[in-house]
Amino acid sequence: RNYTEETVCSVCADLGRKASQLCIVESPTDLLALENGTGYRGYYFVLMGKLSPLDGVGPEQLGLDVLEKRLQQPEVEEVILATSATMEGEVTAHVIGDLVKKYNLRSTRLAQGVPVGGELEYLDLNTLSQAFDSRTDYYRKLGLFRTILSPGCRSPNCQSPIR
Amino acid sequence: RNYTEETVCSVCADLGRKASQLCIVESPTDLLALENGTGYRGYYFVLMGKLSPLDGVGPEQLGLDVLEKRLQQPEVEEVILATSATMEGEVTAHVIGDLVKKYNLRSTRLAQGVPVGGELEYLDLNTLSQAFDSRTDYYRKLGLFRTILSPGCRSPNCQSPIR
Repeated sequence: RNYTEETVCSVCADLGRKASQLCIVESPTDLLALENGTGYRGYYFVLMGKLSPLDGVGPEQLGLDVLEKRLQQPEVEEVILATSATMEGEVTAHVIGDLVKKYNLRSTRLAQGVPVGGELEYLDLNTLSQAFDSRTDYYRKLGLFRTILSPGCRSPNCQSPIR
Repeated sequence: RNYTEETVCSVCADLGRKASQLCIVESPTDLLALENGTGYRGYYFVLMGKLSPLDGVGPEQLGLDVLEKRLQQPEVEEVILATSATMEGEVTAHVIGDLVKKYNLRSTRLAQGVPVGGELEYLDLNTLSQAFDSRTDYYRKLGLFRTILSPGCRSPNCQSPIR
């Protein structure tokens, strides 16, 4: 469900992508942001909106029946709920999360917290509280970074403080 | 190291606080933000700045020697690195993280990702990439929320979609 001039959009037509990951986004703009900003190379499901009963947007408008058929395909293993952190986005993630659970698949949600480059004193209290409650062990997180550091930094002669 | 008219500030003088948690913040403003925005009731260590060698701010200016003495006290179990998500804040967190590791204590860092209420399409790519890479299992996260829901929601007659 992306904008395209062909029958199937260029992302879905790309056979080199991981079929095990399906990322749920609200709009084609979000799809483009994720394509450009992250190394994600799986498939997407574009909702074209978020649940908002007052505006007449229900599960049918978002194509959740189409999504349910997609989830029944055996290759899908992880569903990434990349809806926004607003009230409607959270509700949409919750409903889709329940759907994913029905098929015993893994569902993950984008991390919420302090934005990169953010100073604590300018943060709103909701974000601060969320970031504080979902704090993570520092060294487990750092281990992840270390594996993507350039091999040069691991040399015994390297003077960099980060090995 | 807070602003106060007494010898010891009101937070440190509060004997009802958990002595096992120590939260490292950059400034008294950050301390106030955490006091107001989160339910944290442990102690704080105010750095009064962050590491920035070009501005002449080194470990001595931040009082890391005082912090080291504080870490040697037996009651401290967890050190929360609540410095900002900027370059200097990350470096400061890294240096203090190493110090904490030396004393075999647990160090945690505030979560980084999408701010609460944030739409994906307006996010900068760094934050998006960070939020995507540190995505968490949706149902484990939700489990945490469920335990803090009001008991009324767990009643079998409750019509709320979130039980």
